[in-house]
Amino acid sequence: MNKDKLRIIKIGGNIIDSPSLLTEFLSDFNAIEGKKILVHGGGKIATDFASKMGIEAKMVEGRRITDEAMLDIVTMVYAGLVNKKVVAQLQATGCNAVGLSGADANSIRVIKRPVKSIDYGLVGDIQDDSVDTHTLSIFLENGLVPVFSAITHDGKGQLLNTNADTIASSIATALSTSYSVSLIYCFEKKGVLRDVNDEKSLVTEIKREDFDNLQREGVIAGGMIPKLHNAFDAIDKGVCEVLVGQASDLKFVDSSQFGTRIIK
Amino acid sequence: MNKDKLRIIKIGGNIIDSPSLLTEFLSDFNAIEGKKILVHGGGKIATDFASKMGIEAKMVEGRRITDEAMLDIVTMVYAGLVNKKVVAQLQATGCNAVGLSGADANSIRVIKRPVKSIDYGLVGDIQDDSVDTHTLSIFLENGLVPVFSAITHDGKGQLLNTNADTIASSIATALSTSYSVSLIYCFEKKGVLRDVNDEKSLVTEIKREDFDNLQREGVIAGGMIPKLHNAFDAIDKGVCEVLVGQASDLKFVDSSQFGTRIIK
Repeated sequence: MNKDKLRIIKIGGNIIDSPSLLTEFLSDFNAIEGKKILVHGGGKIATDFASKMGIEAKMVEGRRITDEAMLDIVTMVYAGLVNKKVVAQLQATGCNAVGLSGADANSIRVIKRPVKSIDYGLVGDIQDDSVDTHTLSIFLENGLVPVFSAITHDGKGQLLNTNADTIASSIATALSTSYSVSLIYCFEKKGVLRDVNDEKSLVTEIKREDFDNLQREGVIAGGMIPKLHNAFDAIDKGVCEVLVGQASDLKFVDSSQFGTRIIK
Repeated sequence: MNKDKLRIIKIGGNIIDSPSLLTEFLSDFNAIEGKKILVHGGGKIATDFASKMGIEAKMVEGRRITDEAMLDIVTMVYAGLVNKKVVAQLQATGCNAVGLSGADANSIRVIKRPVKSIDYGLVGDIQDDSVDTHTLSIFLENGLVPVFSAITHDGKGQLLNTNADTIASSIATALSTSYSVSLIYCFEKKGVLRDVNDEKSLVTEIKREDFDNLQREGVIAGGMIPKLHNAFDAIDKGVCEVLVGQASDLKFVDSSQFGTRIIK
């Protein structure tokens, strides 16, 4: 059976924080044909609001902690202000977006992160069965475009803060049983670069067999290593390809001129 | 053709502001069988947040004005914090709620209120064709329970503040072509009372022919007059019945022991 193509596209806070980048991105997103899902981070707005409200970001051993006051702020900003502005803008381009948190339609039900050495507070970890593919398929088959904020729930009435990258990859792997899924991460760089200061040194394709070599050569280092591990993990779980590139290049995604393509 | 029954239930800010009343109400709401939609107001949380942020509610000639800063606040609070908390709580009771603003799935597209003697700012007025019944029917037919906040959009990218009572009656009239609709307003009182200080003086049923008499007798006065005009307007447009009563009585809605029933 030929599966329908589905693109799951994640944008980070840098796009959310720039009205002009966001408008350009949403117009390019609308132009992509076929089924698609958007996952967005929150940007600096939540931190700004929190500080205006006199709520300090709590850190323990360098890790951000989500207490109740901060969860209220991120729920308001991510699932409210940012999500609804993105949805309204997409509607203006003609894209029938529907904004969702993981609580909506029980689409992502997670487990509150267990307390080990650090208590991260109201943070949710996605499990293998967290994503409700049935309801998401109903949305997709009816021409709706889900737009996810990084807020989930535990099914017991508690909202939880969840990493947007993980939401994107979990939706991608869950829906890969029904669709031919491309998972697309938009970030600041053109993609994986041989020389981090040279945008022309883009690595256009990475297969697993290249991954070890590129690490040995030092081409892939730092924050890119876990990103690529997650990408190969998604591919192992059924995602067709993972693309990593710049949001402003999204218009080229159909001509294979977008970022780095990670495949089996 | 026998239409399916659909209940559209509106709760005001007094329920949102009381965690115990809200929990009881949501449990009773979940217990109602069949298709249903919830519409909620915002409560005092938005005003509290605005004042913490140093944003003053702007009034012109006694009317509240929604400027951009206030729209951001109500979008965050109504469509974000309140809507997602209500949805997460409903999910915990087993009700497959999906939280929506009018921008989501283009469900309520309105017109920014024209500036006449007063410029109300970013406020949206619902038109006869504002409600997208097609998408709402898809949700309802797939077992989803839409939960609306009082935020809409103009289809051109602008979110707008819209009266929650009007959202409820507009959804009710729009969906009355496909469903047998009961529109249920929950407020502070038991319903329409002959003596406003005596909860036992409930008027259990009002037909249009009674309405003039009750007005003449002074039984219906003040804020109830426009409420009842709107109720009869909804009935003229196809809604089967309008009920006005107390949120804590919702559990009795099936035994006809809920508030005042307004019919043709």
